[in-house]
This record gives sequence, structure tokens and C-alpha cells, in this order.
Amino acid sequence: MVYQDGFDVPTRGRGSTDIGGQVQALVAASRVGTGICNIFLQHTSASLMLCENADPEVRRDLEAFMARLAPDGDPLFRHVAEGPDDMPAHVRSVLTGSSLVVPVSGGRLALGSWQGIYLWEHRTVAHHRRVLVTVIG
Amino acid sequence: MVYQDGFDVPTRGRGSTDIGGQVQALVAASRVGTGICNIFLQHTSASLMLCENADPEVRRDLEAFMARLAPDGDPLFRHVAEGPDDMPAHVRSVLTGSSLVVPVSGGRLALGSWQGIYLWEHRTVAHHRRVLVTVIG
Amino acid sequence: MVYQDGFDVPTRGRGSTDIGGQVQALVAASRVGTGICNIFLQHTSASLMLCENADPEVRRDLEAFMARLAPDGDPLFRHVAEGPDDMPAHVRSVLTGSSLVVPVSGGRLALGSWQGIYLWEHRTVAHHRRVLVTVIG
Repeated sequence: MVYQDGFDVPTRGRGSTDIGGQVQALVAASRVGTGICNIFLQHTSASLMLCENADPEVRRDLEAFMARLAPDGDPLFRHVAEGPDDMPAHVRSVLTGSSLVVPVSGGRLALGSWQGIYLWEHRTVAHHRRVLVTVIG
Repeated sequence: MVYQDGFDVPTRGRGSTDIGGQVQALVAASRVGTGICNIFLQHTSASLMLCENADPEVRRDLEAFMARLAPDGDPLFRHVAEGPDDMPAHVRSVLTGSSLVVPVSGGRLALGSWQGIYLWEHRTVAHHRRVLVTVIG
Repeated sequence: MVYQDGFDVPTRGRGSTDIGGQVQALVAASRVGTGICNIFLQHTSASLMLCENADPEVRRDLEAFMARLAPDGDPLFRHVAEGPDDMPAHVRSVLTGSSLVVPVSGGRLALGSWQGIYLWEHRTVAHHRRVLVTVIG
């Protein structure tokens, strides 16, 4: 059984958005009981992550960590035509990934109690991001 | 054909544990000859990695690298209620990932000669970690 | 429907190679219309990445970033028998990953307009790298 659908996520610029509910709705629509779910982001300056879902400070700290690791305007970078946050966004995307696979059990995403699925926008300006979900089981 | 099962990994605190044998046993039980195997860790302060399997110094060096990149007690972090190693553990988990897909060929994981599958505990204290394996083919 | 095949990529040493055409050819051969494609690299000192495909400076900047993050000859590392670039290559591989899942729609990889699939060689010397592709749908 193969099911595929997608949705758009409007972002407000840099920061992470919980997309677990939207993915779960597509898993339910798929009617797959046991299998896997691929979540795929069709962009290279944002990413998807599994992250602690209880304390928002965790995602704030991840932003701070990334801002130190790949600072905007870093003189190391030559790809600067789209602005000082563009190349850092690509770096963050490559380090954290834009495709996730989560198992499906009992018709639901088999996440741990403290795991959430987040779309992480790395550009400073608002974007529309496309997420494609494929469920197989 | 879809097969799903899991196992627990007791860790002794920070460090990596070879789980390739346990995953391979489930692949064999699945009776899938050709397909894919998803290995999923239901936690956000540990991760899964494909890593060189011959010289243990490689994993020791990876620990040293991570300890420098995201040091315990880093004043950058605000999420500190669970201790100085908690937020660094989330950072390491996001950077290295908690879901892997490995192809299955001839009823076995199609790893390269030097590839092993490791559960990487990032907290300093011992934990029990849950791994879910789904084989499709 | 499950299809599996592979190909070799000769690299010229450190740098990234677009393998999207080769993967797409196998997706077409699989005759899968809707599903997922796993691309797997059987090595631990190279990686696979989804990266911006328009401006080669992006990949040049990623090299510069990694060279700063995990420099060759870093005195932190003990696994040095194969040379000063060996352990940095393992670090880069663990941070960027060696297994990708890309959805398949209409018989093609459902990449975004600006997404390319690259094999990223992290060793300074030329290698032959083996890529295994599994398509399920």
C-alpha cells in the first residue's frame, strides 16, 4: 500500500514549526497500519528535524547553537547574492537534513513520548515550504 | 511484505554501542530478501549512526569532536534543568540523526565492509533506549 | 514493487559529484510510479547530500565550512594511520549522512526545483564509491 500527499507550511522566517499533526493526518488518511512514513522537504535552505517537544527552550538553544556554528555574514562564504543568511541556511540544511523516515504502528507515527517533528526554517524572511509525505505499508 | 519489531538497548552513559547484530536478526526474522530496513530511535538525546567498524579510536575521536563542538555546561544554553549534558545531547542528536534506512539484499543488511550501525548515547548517565525496526520488501 | 540496483562513482578526491541522473535512471528502470527511493553509500568517509543545484559556489562554501569545522591534521584526533584527512572524513560523513530517502512521483524523483543529489567525497585522494539504490512503490 502506497499513499502520497503533501502540504505547504508558511514560515515567519527563521525558527521551527511543529508539523507532526499534519503528518499524522496524512498517515491516518493512508490507512496504513504498519509501515514507514517518509517526510520530505523540497528545499535546501530549511530542514526537518526530530526534536524534544516539551520545552521550547530546546529549539531556542538549537537556534543559538547554529547561529554560532554558521553565523550570518560569515566572511568564509562566497555565495552571498541572496543575502548574509543564505549560505548559513544551506549549511544548516545539510547538517540537519531534509528527509525523515518515521515508522508507522497501529495506524500512527511511532514517535517516542518526547519526540516532535519540526520544519526548521533557516532563512530570516518568511517562506512557503512544500512538504511531501509518502506512507508505505 | 512489512515486518516490524523492536528492542531495548541499555547504555552505560555517553558512548556508542554496536547494534548491527540485533538489527540483522530482525531482518532475518522478516524473511525479506530485497528491500529496505528503517532503524528508528524513539529518543532525542541519543542517536543512530553508520560508522567505521574496525578501529574503536574512530568513535573515540567522534566523542572528542562532539565534546569540543557542543561542550557540556556551555553558557550558550538555557535548557539546563536536567544537567549540563542535556542540551549538548539534543544538539548531537539533531546533528547526527535518529532514523536510518539501510538497504536489504539477499536477506541481509547491505552494509559496506567497514560500516557498522551504532546507537550513540549522548547523556552521561546510563539509559534504556528503545529501537524500532521496520523491514519492507 | 521492489527494485534494487547500484552503480560506482569514481571520485577525484575531496569534492561533490552530481549523481541525480544516475539515480533517476534507476528510478525509471524500476517502473515505480509512486513510492520512495533509498540511496545508500557503502562507505564511511564520504557522504550523500541534498544540496542547492544552481550555484557551484554553494558546494565550494560547504567545503570551506567543513575544512574549518573538522580541519585535516587536527591534533584532537588519534585515528591518524591513514593520513591527516581520514578522521575529518569520518566526522564529515557522520554529520552529513550516507543514506537518503527521496519520494518518487509520476515515475520520477520528487525533488524540489533547486535540489540536487550529490555524492560528497571527503578523502583527499581519488576513490571508487559504491552506491546502492532501492525503489519501493
